[in-house]
Amino acid sequence: MTEKTALTPSTHTAPPAKFSHGVRKGNILQVAGQVGFLPAVEGRAPTPAGRTLREQTLQTFANVKAILEEGGAGWDDVMMMRVYLTDVDHFAEMNALYDQYFEEQELKAPPAARTTVYVGLPKGLLIEIDALAVLG
Amino acid sequence: MTEKTALTPSTHTAPPAKFSHGVRKGNILQVAGQVGFLPAVEGRAPTPAGRTLREQTLQTFANVKAILEEGGAGWDDVMMMRVYLTDVDHFAEMNALYDQYFEEQELKAPPAARTTVYVGLPKGLLIEIDALAVLG
Amino acid sequence: MTEKTALTPSTHTAPPAKFSHGVRKGNILQVAGQVGFLPAVEGRAPTPAGRTLREQTLQTFANVKAILEEGGAGWDDVMMMRVYLTDVDHFAEMNALYDQYFEEQELKAPPAARTTVYVGLPKGLLIEIDALAVLG
Repeated sequence: MTEKTALTPSTHTAPPAKFSHGVRKGNILQVAGQVGFLPAVEGRAPTPAGRTLREQTLQTFANVKAILEEGGAGWDDVMMMRVYLTDVDHFAEMNALYDQYFEEQELKAPPAARTTVYVGLPKGLLIEIDALAVLG
Repeated sequence: MTEKTALTPSTHTAPPAKFSHGVRKGNILQVAGQVGFLPAVEGRAPTPAGRTLREQTLQTFANVKAILEEGGAGWDDVMMMRVYLTDVDHFAEMNALYDQYFEEQELKAPPAARTTVYVGLPKGLLIEIDALAVLG
Repeated sequence: MTEKTALTPSTHTAPPAKFSHGVRKGNILQVAGQVGFLPAVEGRAPTPAGRTLREQTLQTFANVKAILEEGGAGWDDVMMMRVYLTDVDHFAEMNALYDQYFEEQELKAPPAARTTVYVGLPKGLLIEIDALAVLG
């Protein structure tokens, strides 16, 4: 894979605009900003996994992971996670979800670096995450 | 180009602070956050292309592209676009501009991944974009 | 270092969650979002260097630098600095601090690209910075 390849897992729709859910070129893999949308269903608008931070965060992790795997990578290859929250008061809960999730993933390499900032997101969305991976 | 090289297109001023508009090192090229300023004119303060999202977005694309080209790259090499808007209500219009622009660029490779978030920007600016490219 | 390695300088605590302060894999080094916390002291909660932008910015630079050095890199290797401020009115002062600091660092290579945006940060924090470096 030295060509630039678009990564479109079966759980994702074709991108709604001229961007890719993920791209890989050589050993670099970039995951686009993912939110807590459930796996795509033909003819249904994108639907969040739920209204809670917990539901959206876990679904967002699943969406990032699907793109990593589509590109032949996994969490152990991720160098940087960018976490966008809408509310500073969500930080502690997100951290708890984050820790529990990555415990369960049984990483073999050190976890990725991370930046968390608080921004605006489209109505109803509480979290967005993108990731940069370097394959082995 | 295995040395780290600053990319300063003729359309850009010398950077106003100790940063580069873009840098390339080996096959990695990073474009700094670009906004919709018109090409620099000696003795004139930086001037946005206009007040509308359309004017600023198209100028921002041109500014990113100038830096890519200064580094021997093009849109096909871009892995990640980070789009910063100030208003969630601008998302649909930005997407339409984005799609039309990249249709016209006749990409030969899949489009870059993208994250869009809503932040504060200096007064008068509606959009900022930075980009990470991996050359072939 | 082709393995993914966690970078934890002696000035930093063990990360409070399943992320790394920095990671290096091959020639890519990613520094996690740093804020103006003083060097860690066992048993003391993370403590900002002060209330002012100046104090926090200089401490943040020191924290980024410690991670770069832990990974065998320095400012000259940094490709991208992401600066998160909470207040547009801090831009001019941050720029002045930025310029003075990097003058003093006596860079041998061109300075990194940079994006500055305005976001929310946890109470009391005025600035956060992360960095991507390419070694070699």
